[in-house]
Amino acid sequence: MKWNARHPLVFVLAVVLGLAFGTQVVAQSDPLPSWNEGPAKEAIVKFVEVTTTQGSPKFVPPAERIATFDQDGTLWVEHPMYSQIVYCFDRVPAVVKAKPELANVEPFKTVMSGNREAIAKLSMDDLFKILAATLTGMSVEDFKAEAKKWLDTARDPRWKRPYTELTYLPMQEVLKYLRANGYRTYIVTGGGQDFVRMYADEVYGIPPEQVVGTASGAKYGYTKNGKPFLTKEPKLLLNDNNAGKPEGIYLMIGRRPYAAFGNSTGDRQMLEYTKAGAGERLAMLVLHDDAQREYAYGPALGLSATRVGTFTQALYDQAKREGWVVISMKSDWKRIFTFEP
Amino acid sequence: MKWNARHPLVFVLAVVLGLAFGTQVVAQSDPLPSWNEGPAKEAIVKFVEVTTTQGSPKFVPPAERIATFDQDGTLWVEHPMYSQIVYCFDRVPAVVKAKPELANVEPFKTVMSGNREAIAKLSMDDLFKILAATLTGMSVEDFKAEAKKWLDTARDPRWKRPYTELTYLPMQEVLKYLRANGYRTYIVTGGGQDFVRMYADEVYGIPPEQVVGTASGAKYGYTKNGKPFLTKEPKLLLNDNNAGKPEGIYLMIGRRPYAAFGNSTGDRQMLEYTKAGAGERLAMLVLHDDAQREYAYGPALGLSATRVGTFTQALYDQAKREGWVVISMKSDWKRIFTFEP
Repeated sequence: MKWNARHPLVFVLAVVLGLAFGTQVVAQSDPLPSWNEGPAKEAIVKFVEVTTTQGSPKFVPPAERIATFDQDGTLWVEHPMYSQIVYCFDRVPAVVKAKPELANVEPFKTVMSGNREAIAKLSMDDLFKILAATLTGMSVEDFKAEAKKWLDTARDPRWKRPYTELTYLPMQEVLKYLRANGYRTYIVTGGGQDFVRMYADEVYGIPPEQVVGTASGAKYGYTKNGKPFLTKEPKLLLNDNNAGKPEGIYLMIGRRPYAAFGNSTGDRQMLEYTKAGAGERLAMLVLHDDAQREYAYGPALGLSATRVGTFTQALYDQAKREGWVVISMKSDWKRIFTFEP
Repeated sequence: MKWNARHPLVFVLAVVLGLAFGTQVVAQSDPLPSWNEGPAKEAIVKFVEVTTTQGSPKFVPPAERIATFDQDGTLWVEHPMYSQIVYCFDRVPAVVKAKPELANVEPFKTVMSGNREAIAKLSMDDLFKILAATLTGMSVEDFKAEAKKWLDTARDPRWKRPYTELTYLPMQEVLKYLRANGYRTYIVTGGGQDFVRMYADEVYGIPPEQVVGTASGAKYGYTKNGKPFLTKEPKLLLNDNNAGKPEGIYLMIGRRPYAAFGNSTGDRQMLEYTKAGAGERLAMLVLHDDAQREYAYGPALGLSATRVGTFTQALYDQAKREGWVVISMKSDWKRIFTFEP
């Protein structure tokens, strides 16, 4: 049998091989259609090419391909308040109902008053008391049931949509693009690990074991019938902010990321740690500079600091100095949400 | 073109498809050749079939297929002393050399004396002091370099082989069999997470992010030149023994295992937690009852308790009561080590 390109066998073989290895053949179109052309998009594409092309001097073996993403303000909207904080405030009435003695104790009294000005002035200490009361002291299953109910029903005040729809389409594309190239994508968040694990799989395609977050201890015990269960304890195991991010990455993953994405000073150490590794490393920061389509905030824009993640001038200067790429929502993102045209 | 089985094209297609999908075609032979036929082997094979066959009422989706393994005494030899403890004792002279003031301080003085009887009598408190001094207070990189040197050169006293060769072939087969059926295999060990991560990939095919162990904190900081690094701190984050095992699984994986393997009271809660889940769950305990080929120890055999993992009569009774499967090394394992015939 002679082989030449016109032989029907060659066609059949091509079809069979195409079926078997099709995924690789198809992935030629633009993987980041919601991004405008520019240095940010270019940096992502170049990073993936350089680290995943066989024979590239900066090739990264698949097992080591780790990319970490901050969540609030990086993967979804954080302004004017982290959604988990909204959840905790929403849970206060139920907690006070279960423990009526709290009704006259601060900060619960203020929260129950509904006085927005007074609530906005609550201290970090007050906030921790609210987090502890609403997130701990219950079984893991009870927590999941409560959080699920809220996630299904709560709506954000601006877009009137479930919080889980407020994710950034361009970042969803980055997650998928990295995964299509053998990267495992992790969330590394200051938010509660248990809370984010509730929806990360459905919303981002990130399974629970790839969510690293601020974690309270879970205590093992037994019901009256001897059935084992875990209780969420008000004991902070990992504060996954600032230096806690690389520390949490080391604890939970044990590998240094090749790419890291953040949007505030709380992500600084994660980006430093990522960039300090050998070979090609990518560090990116989302700048919220689009007041019309999303929000504009932070000192780097000459705007006031907010309760949520802060992009300071110092962070901006460090990014420029150390080769981190700043993503401008306004100019780098063609489209921000799936629900907007 | 007419299709029939003798047409050369059919043969070519079969070869091409065989190349593309070959792995699935081959996996028909006995996946557990080092196991004797019996209830233990049967339980493993049945568990895999029931949970991975499409349409089975107890089918487990691939993403949820988690199996957890204790290490010492379950995946490799733990008697007469955990290899990591041997490592820590071996490191004491270097620690004392670096800090000569320790030479006259207990328990370092006793360890340096070389008096085996006195060393054997050291308390748990003494042991913790030795662990803290030899495993913490150094950069993560320095720890790795030291541990690697030891792993490469140390030999166990009985078989005169690197400790990493003392793994049980039948358990290696279980790891591979489960992975071939879509399970992700985790080590959940009372041993040091950092230590086990050093070799788990090479020895068991288990990557660092799938090793959950007793963990000390790592503290983020900078060198004089501003380069970030992590220091191992003498602060216990997770004591991954007893109740700490399900607690660690919840923290690090966030899913309940479908199968769990252990060999001592330290694994009891992990097995309870595993079996308490819905659907088909597998809980197994290795019983060290083979004095000739390995060791025989533990109260369940009427033998004295030892420093290493303890298989008590109560654990044995609980296993029988709750449907956990006890693996007899003597009768269930045809061959224990790769280096033995």
